[in-house]
Amino acid sequence: MAWFTFAAMESFPAPLAELQPGWVWLAGAGPGDPGLLTVQAWHALGQADVVVYDALVGDGILALAPAGCILESAGKRGGKPSPKQADISLRLIQLAQEGKRVLRLKGGDPFVFGRGGEEALALVRAGVPFRIVPGVSSGIGGLAYAGIPVTHREINSAVTFITGHDMTGDVPGGLDWAALARGAPVIVIYMALAHLRQIAELLLSHGRAPGEPVAIVCRASLPEQKVIESTLAACADDAVTQAVEPPCLVVVGEVVRLRAGLDWLGALAGRVLEPDPLGGRQGREVG
Amino acid sequence: MAWFTFAAMESFPAPLAELQPGWVWLAGAGPGDPGLLTVQAWHALGQADVVVYDALVGDGILALAPAGCILESAGKRGGKPSPKQADISLRLIQLAQEGKRVLRLKGGDPFVFGRGGEEALALVRAGVPFRIVPGVSSGIGGLAYAGIPVTHREINSAVTFITGHDMTGDVPGGLDWAALARGAPVIVIYMALAHLRQIAELLLSHGRAPGEPVAIVCRASLPEQKVIESTLAACADDAVTQAVEPPCLVVVGEVVRLRAGLDWLGALAGRVLEPDPLGGRQGREVG
Repeated sequence: MAWFTFAAMESFPAPLAELQPGWVWLAGAGPGDPGLLTVQAWHALGQADVVVYDALVGDGILALAPAGCILESAGKRGGKPSPKQADISLRLIQLAQEGKRVLRLKGGDPFVFGRGGEEALALVRAGVPFRIVPGVSSGIGGLAYAGIPVTHREINSAVTFITGHDMTGDVPGGLDWAALARGAPVIVIYMALAHLRQIAELLLSHGRAPGEPVAIVCRASLPEQKVIESTLAACADDAVTQAVEPPCLVVVGEVVRLRAGLDWLGALAGRVLEPDPLGGRQGREVG
Repeated sequence: MAWFTFAAMESFPAPLAELQPGWVWLAGAGPGDPGLLTVQAWHALGQADVVVYDALVGDGILALAPAGCILESAGKRGGKPSPKQADISLRLIQLAQEGKRVLRLKGGDPFVFGRGGEEALALVRAGVPFRIVPGVSSGIGGLAYAGIPVTHREINSAVTFITGHDMTGDVPGGLDWAALARGAPVIVIYMALAHLRQIAELLLSHGRAPGEPVAIVCRASLPEQKVIESTLAACADDAVTQAVEPPCLVVVGEVVRLRAGLDWLGALAGRVLEPDPLGGRQGREVG
């Protein structure tokens, strides 16, 4: 495809931090497209002795690691259950204490539903030095690849990000769903699929409109990205009918309508974009 | 400083999109540290004929543009007032129609309080092709440089991002502040300084605790970054006393306490991190 090349890039003309032996860097890999790695994370990938990666970090990004770099999955391994969080932290500590340069690579951003803080505190307790390398959060950058902005001035001044399950694996229990439903006009749900029906019912029972637009975005920013446009009342059924599989993001709110005008990835494949996806409300000039 | 080098990086071993003549790319520059640019945005910076940048894009990032690339400010120019949004959009259209490769560079992410959707729709109406290049949002990545995660499993399953002023320049009026106050345990406010007192009072009047921790993070991720730890009751006064200047992020919530353990940037400068910043609540193992 003529739009893409393997770029011969010049030296990055600004100082970058160096990953030192005995250190752990907790880095975000972004939503999936390798081009959304930060320059700092890519630089670290070239320096790491070991990369400990999550299930959400795709092959396209792991393929960027140079020969000789050890890739170690912290996700499910060969059908075995996921290692416990404490086991992952212990492994990071062990590798650092062996003098390795350790890159802990997570999907999205390590501090957005990524347990980065927990792992970093375990490192602090063990005396292991660390750095945080933020990444593009999937709930923002992944939705951008579906042509959906999480904020739009004429729609919302606030957006709420929620994880679809809490520490126990259930729908987050400590939350005031009535308040969440009446708060931000746009709600982005990470890891939403397992409890989508329950979450949609909670939002509906607390006053969100059945016809409110919803998008389900699967494998966001990757070539196999799939976007399902639905409504709050229908989204759980649609996810079943369309045989949606995780990982998925779900976004609830009027910003979903903007996709008709902003689906730039669709436009690359020939989709004709609508110049006025909000139906006349667009175009007010305010400053 | 031994920790930083000008890295001689190899070719990026994955396909990157190419910025073509007549196109506009709306890209996020991240919170400020040039290393937080995405590889795709940096690649575009090397290809652009013109970069139209916002006031929040710092010199360190603009310095990455190659010789011959025209840098054009879309912010305040020589004391003149900011150009209207419509003028910026018209300028982007004009440059694209001249056959330029146009990079519209915004602080943070273009779809998080960045007006990216508005500019993109103006391009659609003019028939100008575009692409969105997400960036690290300042409210996530900037706070990470202050050692503050926007989520932490034992504290919050939801986080709300709010802009400190709406289209009229006032505190966002259409919002249900009572619901926002009771909704997400962590609230991140962008462009918070102008109306910080009013926002803090709104949150207090709707039940948030006066002693709730607040951090004000100015010029996040840049060498001159300044962090003020305060409380909801005291933060507006502290901003005055400490002569805080924009751009600032404000974060409200218990996650601010984690900074005592996670201030990795402070640790680089000798700060001793606390292994248990939540005072014993830390360390539960859940899976």
